[in-house]
Amino acid sequence: MVEKAANALLPGDTIGIIGGGQLGRMLAMAAARLGLKTIILEPDAGCPAAQTANRHIAAAFDDKHALKEFSAACDVITYEFENIPVSAVSFLEENNLLFPSSLALEKSQDRLTEKNFLRDLGIATAPFAPVEDVASLKTAIAEIGTQAILKTRRLGYDGKGQVRINGDTGIEEAWQAIGAVPAILEGFVDFAREISVIAARDRNGRVVCYDPAENVHREGILRTSTVPAASSPQTTAKAVKIAETITDALDYTGVMGIEFFVLGDGALAVNEIAPRVHNSGHWTEAACDVSQFEQHIRAVAGWPLAWPLRHSNCVMENLIGDDMDRLPQLLSDGNCLVHLYGKAETRAGRKMGHVTRLTGPAKS
Amino acid sequence: MVEKAANALLPGDTIGIIGGGQLGRMLAMAAARLGLKTIILEPDAGCPAAQTANRHIAAAFDDKHALKEFSAACDVITYEFENIPVSAVSFLEENNLLFPSSLALEKSQDRLTEKNFLRDLGIATAPFAPVEDVASLKTAIAEIGTQAILKTRRLGYDGKGQVRINGDTGIEEAWQAIGAVPAILEGFVDFAREISVIAARDRNGRVVCYDPAENVHREGILRTSTVPAASSPQTTAKAVKIAETITDALDYTGVMGIEFFVLGDGALAVNEIAPRVHNSGHWTEAACDVSQFEQHIRAVAGWPLAWPLRHSNCVMENLIGDDMDRLPQLLSDGNCLVHLYGKAETRAGRKMGHVTRLTGPAKS
Repeated sequence: MVEKAANALLPGDTIGIIGGGQLGRMLAMAAARLGLKTIILEPDAGCPAAQTANRHIAAAFDDKHALKEFSAACDVITYEFENIPVSAVSFLEENNLLFPSSLALEKSQDRLTEKNFLRDLGIATAPFAPVEDVASLKTAIAEIGTQAILKTRRLGYDGKGQVRINGDTGIEEAWQAIGAVPAILEGFVDFAREISVIAARDRNGRVVCYDPAENVHREGILRTSTVPAASSPQTTAKAVKIAETITDALDYTGVMGIEFFVLGDGALAVNEIAPRVHNSGHWTEAACDVSQFEQHIRAVAGWPLAWPLRHSNCVMENLIGDDMDRLPQLLSDGNCLVHLYGKAETRAGRKMGHVTRLTGPAKS
Repeated sequence: MVEKAANALLPGDTIGIIGGGQLGRMLAMAAARLGLKTIILEPDAGCPAAQTANRHIAAAFDDKHALKEFSAACDVITYEFENIPVSAVSFLEENNLLFPSSLALEKSQDRLTEKNFLRDLGIATAPFAPVEDVASLKTAIAEIGTQAILKTRRLGYDGKGQVRINGDTGIEEAWQAIGAVPAILEGFVDFAREISVIAARDRNGRVVCYDPAENVHREGILRTSTVPAASSPQTTAKAVKIAETITDALDYTGVMGIEFFVLGDGALAVNEIAPRVHNSGHWTEAACDVSQFEQHIRAVAGWPLAWPLRHSNCVMENLIGDDMDRLPQLLSDGNCLVHLYGKAETRAGRKMGHVTRLTGPAKS
């Protein structure tokens, strides 16, 4: 139906989504709006995504029998988080179209691999050094300084697996605090602001980017994304160019979230890349004609991307843990779009939903 | 959590939806975005709504066992179409909160009852007369004229159960054509345009209305809705006043679609009311902060309504039958929001989906 007709999905076809969190939930709804079916592979029986998908295979990601069943039922496969065993993804990739490819997953699952990948592309990052043990941590601190964060190479998210290094923190304690596992020491970047770009790349290599959002994190968790970001057109152009460089280097298909530090002089350093739809792109659902979720589905389905048109300015705020206590007020605010993820239990630090406020028409 | 706290739902609670079509599908997605679960009661195993809901009870609407199971599983019940046996709704209403009430259903299930209800409220409609047999059809034609449509009192939709009367049509043939069932003869209205208002009323009687849409029908089926409608502020004010009168008279809870004829002098006649979300309100999903589907869910959940803010102008076009052949072009048009209903089979006259195009910022 499009350029790569043989592989493009038809309405009624099925997209498999590995992972059952809120990103999978929103992907499943976007797929449904396009007449596509979804199957979620996720061990948690009550996961958010299964509630809006056509089917749920409740099994571990390395369950061979489940992977075969999943593989047989899907016309194309994608994933909604990056902490999946590469072995599972490689198995599926042998039998199915799978986007983004396992290469993107490999590069982004490991903070050190990711940083080296970016550096090899000539893209600035925070200063970093590998840490294998206490000795190499000491070497890294000597090189980078004490204004730094020790992060596990793998399995960290939302501030987990991280500890701040400073004059008062014992080096041995920091090493133990992250579980004495392979890590990376990242130097602080003295940034003016944090922005992110949500890029989408189709199977033919066309890249489109949404307007950058300006992000505020607290305790390692995204709190708000505001659009437009207070960054110059030059900075935006540079960020888009970097997004194109990264996605082209991976021959990437799908949506990628790229977080940047904007320095005082407008220079950019990439903080992190995520090979999936991204929390800092949730605003696109409220303020754009077509959301990041639909763009991702279009890309992996082999369908054309939509223009990333933004009709409104907006502020997205995450609802984390006790923020849910504010729900009655948020629902009573007639100007506030509430989006909840269907999680039964509210826990500290857990993303329960988000709200978006449109703040006026976008300047065209 | 709101004014009627005892009955208001909490996130995680369950809304039962009677009917499994595309309206139920979009209601289920709106409920999911608000963290509410949904159960669909609908005989068709592959129905559009079940694909996006948490659960599906596949049974006839008058299946006593299924109704009991449905009743026990739901915290509140609503419906997505009006051709449900009133006996089933009455049974559920004895045990459950059910919105809109069976009164609204009774008034709108029968074209004659509906017209009389409107006339009793002092609201203009097309001229009409009841038809019970060929003799009363002749009497009705003598009264109304031959520029008229004979419609079954019950179970008509999308132009079904209707036949046009004119000089060439035999009266006996017309009567047989609609199945020789109780009917109503409606005189043509010489209208300048057709508009509709999507009204929402909460459990406390607050009514909010979206901007009127201008509608184009062909062969009795809605083809396009355009916002803003080319009607004056005075006409809009009158339409909103009528919407308030109708919903107040029914102590209505939920969204109602009200179709109007706008006459040459700006006067209004009500064509039809629908006690549910309405095809001519699908544009709200693309052009408003909060859609008609979310407003309906908020109302039946006992939650506050959102402001019916519209950020953009837009045109919604239904995809009917062979319109699906245009899907590749529609998907390639990066400025077009495609929404499909997950129906496996394309049939002539069947609503398969719709597309919305945003055409610029709304004037505030």
